[in-house]
Amino acid sequence: MSRKINVRNPRTGINDYTFNVTTPEEISSIAAKARQGSEKWQKMSHSARTDVMKSFQAALSNKQSEITDALIIDTGRRGISIMEVSGVIKSIDRWINIADCHQEDNLRAGNKTALPSVTYGSQLCPYNLVGIISPWNFPCTLAMIDAIPALLAGCAVIIKPSEVTPRFIEPLVGAIQSIPILCDVLHFIQGDGETGNALISHIDAVCFTGSVNTGRKVASVAADNFIPAFLELGGNDPAIVLEDADIEKAATTLLRASIINTGQACQSIERIYVAKPHYDEFCNLLVEAAKKVHLNRDDISKGHIGPLIYEKQAHIIKAQLDDALEQGAKILCGGEIYTDAGAWVEPTVIVDVNHHMKLMKEETFGPIMPVMAFETDEEAVKLANDTDYGLSAAVFSKNLDHAYNIAVKIEAGGISINDGSLTGLVGDAEKNSFKLSGMGGSRMGEAGYLRFFRKKSMLLNSGEPFNINMFDESNST
Amino acid sequence: MSRKINVRNPRTGINDYTFNVTTPEEISSIAAKARQGSEKWQKMSHSARTDVMKSFQAALSNKQSEITDALIIDTGRRGISIMEVSGVIKSIDRWINIADCHQEDNLRAGNKTALPSVTYGSQLCPYNLVGIISPWNFPCTLAMIDAIPALLAGCAVIIKPSEVTPRFIEPLVGAIQSIPILCDVLHFIQGDGETGNALISHIDAVCFTGSVNTGRKVASVAADNFIPAFLELGGNDPAIVLEDADIEKAATTLLRASIINTGQACQSIERIYVAKPHYDEFCNLLVEAAKKVHLNRDDISKGHIGPLIYEKQAHIIKAQLDDALEQGAKILCGGEIYTDAGAWVEPTVIVDVNHHMKLMKEETFGPIMPVMAFETDEEAVKLANDTDYGLSAAVFSKNLDHAYNIAVKIEAGGISINDGSLTGLVGDAEKNSFKLSGMGGSRMGEAGYLRFFRKKSMLLNSGEPFNINMFDESNST
Repeated sequence: MSRKINVRNPRTGINDYTFNVTTPEEISSIAAKARQGSEKWQKMSHSARTDVMKSFQAALSNKQSEITDALIIDTGRRGISIMEVSGVIKSIDRWINIADCHQEDNLRAGNKTALPSVTYGSQLCPYNLVGIISPWNFPCTLAMIDAIPALLAGCAVIIKPSEVTPRFIEPLVGAIQSIPILCDVLHFIQGDGETGNALISHIDAVCFTGSVNTGRKVASVAADNFIPAFLELGGNDPAIVLEDADIEKAATTLLRASIINTGQACQSIERIYVAKPHYDEFCNLLVEAAKKVHLNRDDISKGHIGPLIYEKQAHIIKAQLDDALEQGAKILCGGEIYTDAGAWVEPTVIVDVNHHMKLMKEETFGPIMPVMAFETDEEAVKLANDTDYGLSAAVFSKNLDHAYNIAVKIEAGGISINDGSLTGLVGDAEKNSFKLSGMGGSRMGEAGYLRFFRKKSMLLNSGEPFNINMFDESNST
Repeated sequence: MSRKINVRNPRTGINDYTFNVTTPEEISSIAAKARQGSEKWQKMSHSARTDVMKSFQAALSNKQSEITDALIIDTGRRGISIMEVSGVIKSIDRWINIADCHQEDNLRAGNKTALPSVTYGSQLCPYNLVGIISPWNFPCTLAMIDAIPALLAGCAVIIKPSEVTPRFIEPLVGAIQSIPILCDVLHFIQGDGETGNALISHIDAVCFTGSVNTGRKVASVAADNFIPAFLELGGNDPAIVLEDADIEKAATTLLRASIINTGQACQSIERIYVAKPHYDEFCNLLVEAAKKVHLNRDDISKGHIGPLIYEKQAHIIKAQLDDALEQGAKILCGGEIYTDAGAWVEPTVIVDVNHHMKLMKEETFGPIMPVMAFETDEEAVKLANDTDYGLSAAVFSKNLDHAYNIAVKIEAGGISINDGSLTGLVGDAEKNSFKLSGMGGSRMGEAGYLRFFRKKSMLLNSGEPFNINMFDESNST
C-alpha cells in the first residue's frame, strides 16, 4: 500500500488534490529502468539526442496550456506560471546551443602536445543517472532547469518535485510519454523528504534546490554515498542604494525584486541599505509604489502578486515581523497576513530594523522590505556581508566605477548593478554561491552543462615509452 | 604539552626522527594568521603574487639539496626524491602560465550581452583559506601540487603532510621563511589523522590525497562543514594488452608503470589483461625484464626501486598475495617480502589470478603484477571495469583506432595509450576520477587552478529596470 499525500490549494487553503507517494521499491525499479535507458541514450549521437530534445520541446508546447493550468492551481498565481512553462520550453534552445559548442571536446587523444612523444585529448563522460530534488516556489522551472542540460549531456534523470505543488507533473509526464526514448531516461517520482532521501542511494549525482537546512542534509547523504551534490540553496540578498544612485529607479526596481512571486524566490531582495541622505526619500517612494501593488486574491487574473504557496511561510514571516516589532521596528505599509482562505501578505515596508532581528538574519521568503540607512560605503558593504548567505545582491549607482567598487566587495555569487535579481533572468551568467547559499558548480552558463560530465583524458605515447632502466638510481644526479 | 610522533626510517625500520604534533590551539591560531594573511594576499595584484611565487621558486632552488636529502631519508629512494623536488620547482612555471591566461576573466560587467539592456561579466573570487592533507608516497610533490595553484589564485594555504614522511618539511619551511609575505599565507602543520580532522573546521576548501577510506571520511566531514572537498584517492588501474599490440613494448612499459616508486603510486598499474594468443609470450617477457630490476637495498645509489615507505603496506601486500596463492595463483618471479630491516618487496609477477582474489579487487600499492588472459575485447573491458575504482588505465595496440575504441569504454579518468601512468607525468591533461577514486574537480590542467575560485557574475542593466507593473497578472496572456 502506497502512502498518500493530500495537497492544499494555496488560494483556498483547502486540500483538493491527492497523490500516491512513490514507494522505495518503485524508486528502485524506476532507477534500474533509467540506468538501462542511459546506456542506449549515451550510445545515441549528440544530434540524435538533440532531435529528441526538440521533440520534447514540441511535446511540451502541445501540452503547454494543460501544464500551465495545473501550475496555476499549484501556485495560485497566473502570470508567472505562464512565464515558467514558456521559459522552460525556450530554455531547451539555449541548452542545445551550449551543448553544440562542446561536441568538439570529444577529441580523444591527439590534439595537444605534452612530453616530446605524448599527445593528449579528452572525452566527456556523462554521469549515468542524475537525481533532481526541486522546490515549490517555481515548481516547473526548477524541476526542469537541471534536467534539460543533464539529458543533453547523456544522463538519465529522475526528478522528485516538491510535494507542495505536484499538479503540474501529470500533464508534463504526458508530454514525456509521447516520446518513447524519453520515457526510458526521464522519470518523475512523487513524495516528500523521505522520498528524496530514498532517491539519493540510486543516483550518480544529485541536484538539489531548496532550503539551507535540507541542502546540508543532502550534502551529507551525498558524501556518504560518494556522489557529487549540486546545491542551490537560500539567500538573504542585500541591496545597496549608494549616495549617487537614481533613487526613484532604485525604489521601483527594488520593490519588484523584493516582491515578485510574493517574495518566494531565493534571489529576491530581502534587505535594503540606503545612503543616509536619501533614506527618507527612498522610503517614501518605496511605500508609495508598494501601496499600488495588488494581491490577486479576489481575481486571479488581476493584481500583481499571489498567495503564499506553502502555508508554513505565513508563520515564518509572522514570527520574523513580530520579533522585529518587539525590538522596535516600525511598519510603514503592509504587515497584515491573511490566513482565512489561503495565506496572503501585502507588500510590507519596515524600518528601524537592525541585525539583531531575525528578519535581517534569516531568509524571509515573503514580500517584506526592511530598509536601513548607512553612513559610509564601508558600513554598507559590512552590513551586506553580515550574513550566513551569499547568493546574490544588488548595487545602485549612476557612477558605474563606484558601483563596481562596491560590487567586488560583496560576498555573493551574482551582483545586479542598477537592477535586482538579474541572475534569475540571465541563464548564461555563470555564478557560484558563497557561504551557505550553495555548493558544487554553477547551474548557469556552460558550467550548467559541463558539470554533468567527468572529463577523461586520453594520452597517447607515439614514441618510445619510458622504461624502468631510466629510473635506475645510479642514473640520478 | 604537545603530543610527539616517532618516525620510522624506511631503510632501517628504526625510529630515528621525532616531531611535535601541532595542537588544536596552534591550528586555530595558524588558521587565524593565514586568514588575515589572505586579505593582504588577495589585495596584491596578480603580477605581485606571481613575483612572490617566483621568489619562492628561487628559495626552493636554494634549499633544493637540503629538501631532497631529507626526502631521501623520508622515502628511502634517491632518484625519485630528486625528481620530486625539481618537479615541484618546475611546476611553479606551469601554474604561473595557467594563472596568466585567466587574468582576463576578471572583467566585471560589460563584456557579454544578455537581455536587451543587460550586459554581464565575471569576477574570480578565491577561497580565503585552503587546507591540504597529503600522503607519504610522493611527500613533497603531493604536499605542493595543490598548494601552488591555490596560492597563485589568492588563497592562503595550510598543509598537513603525512606523519610517515615529515623530514622534508623543515628545509621546505626554511625556503618559505625567507619570504615574509609567504610566511603569512603558506603554513605547514604536523600530525596524523586527528590533526587533519581538526584542520577541516578552520578552512574554506579541502584538498585531500590518500586512501579511499580516509577520503570518504574527509568528504563527510567537509559536507558537515559545508566546504568543497577535492579528493584524489586510490586506484586499481588496469592495463589491456590487445591482440595487435607490440608485446615487447607493452611488457617493458607495464613493468615500469607497475613498479616505479615500488608501486606506491595511485596511478600505478595493478592489473594486467593480455590477449590470449600473446599471454605466454607477454608473461615470459615481463618476468625476464622484472628479474633485471634491483632493489636499492644495499646501496641507495644503485638499483631501481626502494623500500616500502609505510610499514603497514608490507602486511597488506602479504595478505593479498597469500589470499591469491590460497586460491590457486602462481608466482612466476619475486614474491618475497623482507622485513628484517625496513620492508622490501621484489617485483612480483603472479598468474592464474581471478577477480575473487583481494589482489584483483583491492588497491595493492606495491610492485606486484598480476597477469590474466582474455579472449575477447568485450571481456577485457568488462574485467577492466570490474572494480570499485576508476582512476586511470592503459591500453596497448599498434592500431590506434582499436586502442581508442577500447579506451572510450573504460570507466576511468585518464587512459594511457601505448604507455602507462602518463597522467602522473602530464600535468596539463585535465581528468576527473570515476567511482571511488576521487571527487570534486581535477587537479590537472587549468581546472586545477580554477577550482580555487568561485565565479561571481556581475550583471549591469544600463536601460530601464524591470518594474512590478510589468508583472501585473492582467498583462499576462
